[in-house]
Amino acid sequence: MTINKEKNKIEVCYSPALYPYYRNDNAIVVVSDILRATTAICAAFENGVKQLIPVADLDEARALKKRGFLVAAERDGLVLDFADFGNSPFNFSPGQVKGATIAYSTTNGTQAIRMASEARHVAVGAFINLSALASWLISQDADVVILCAGWKNRYNLEDSVFAGALSNALIESGGFYTECDAAVAAMELWELAREDLTGYMEKAAHRHRLKKLGLDDIMEYCNTPDSTRVIPLLKDNFLVEHKDY
Amino acid sequence: MTINKEKNKIEVCYSPALYPYYRNDNAIVVVSDILRATTAICAAFENGVKQLIPVADLDEARALKKRGFLVAAERDGLVLDFADFGNSPFNFSPGQVKGATIAYSTTNGTQAIRMASEARHVAVGAFINLSALASWLISQDADVVILCAGWKNRYNLEDSVFAGALSNALIESGGFYTECDAAVAAMELWELAREDLTGYMEKAAHRHRLKKLGLDDIMEYCNTPDSTRVIPLLKDNFLVEHKDY
Repeated sequence: MTINKEKNKIEVCYSPALYPYYRNDNAIVVVSDILRATTAICAAFENGVKQLIPVADLDEARALKKRGFLVAAERDGLVLDFADFGNSPFNFSPGQVKGATIAYSTTNGTQAIRMASEARHVAVGAFINLSALASWLISQDADVVILCAGWKNRYNLEDSVFAGALSNALIESGGFYTECDAAVAAMELWELAREDLTGYMEKAAHRHRLKKLGLDDIMEYCNTPDSTRVIPLLKDNFLVEHKDY
Repeated sequence: MTINKEKNKIEVCYSPALYPYYRNDNAIVVVSDILRATTAICAAFENGVKQLIPVADLDEARALKKRGFLVAAERDGLVLDFADFGNSPFNFSPGQVKGATIAYSTTNGTQAIRMASEARHVAVGAFINLSALASWLISQDADVVILCAGWKNRYNLEDSVFAGALSNALIESGGFYTECDAAVAAMELWELAREDLTGYMEKAAHRHRLKKLGLDDIMEYCNTPDSTRVIPLLKDNFLVEHKDY
């Protein structure tokens, strides 16, 4: 392990409950909730949403609904009755979201975004914006913490494989290193998964949860890299699209 | 994923800080801290220690020392000044430990053992007792939670690879299943590591921590399966050797 300390450091945190042990407020935190929140957030910006308000709890989501905001809200994969959308990326079609501000609350992902708000930047990562996000991170000269939203604070496979994909892209650029075992393990999984990502994700428990609910139509979309160049960033508690690419 | 609910369930918890999300008091909890606490505990019983008192904090270790107990205590790999031993498995030689009761405090492992004390059983797992432990678990007809001690609540590679090895042995027996992504990922790593475990562990951050301290003489020993048949179990806050094999 030869480390050039002038390189920037990558760390991977497998659960929001572990974030205190990985927290580095000088870093850019990339939040990953592949199935489905961070994929849906990228899709929403790709389809022209103006801004998203990441909402941690349902009372806040209901309050924003009463104030006239569009609200996307789900728990355990199901749309909540007061909400306008759930968190399928297919919910956020251009006709429905273009120019809109949407309050968004999910089981895991939006809490993770809020949790990291003291960091240098908080970016939203998914396979669908992988290359654009990697390029932007490489341009920033900062440490990176990849925060996997997981499933109710438990480890999940899809967020970890994404963390491996992003770690791998950053290290291949030459500007990053890692001493983090979670990043090492995630890159190992990415090597196993990369040739057939959708097939590999058959192993993931949440894929089966979604299938039972009839919600697994989004697997191919969520597991296909680089369908968009958007980079959603948290700015003053709003998610907005980073524009300078 | 075909699941026979009459099989017993395996779950893998990558950090003591995640234990609340995996806790199952009907399960047998296997604690793994390969480098070096749980390997050292197995070595101590192999060499005839009568019982070990897992101690969570150093004040308790000092108090037991004053009461005349032999004390093994380390933090960050280094022996503490008041202690009789550190936590290298080579410390616990037969001449020193045969018939003794030793109070034992480590950076990660002994806290994890104490944390799980409400479970059906708490067993100590390491590569050196892998097959004996797997056989005993298969005989017990109970769910299994493998609790990785990690490194200061962060994920580590060696405990995860061990979790994969044990999960794999249990599933191959036909009596267990898993729906746990952490177990799936751990078994993937074990498949990558099993042909050359000591070589694979070169990737692990703690191996480099120990090397810097000149403490990596134990790598081969810690990564060689099945040098002992002992199964240390927690009974009334003491670790004792399970005898009925």
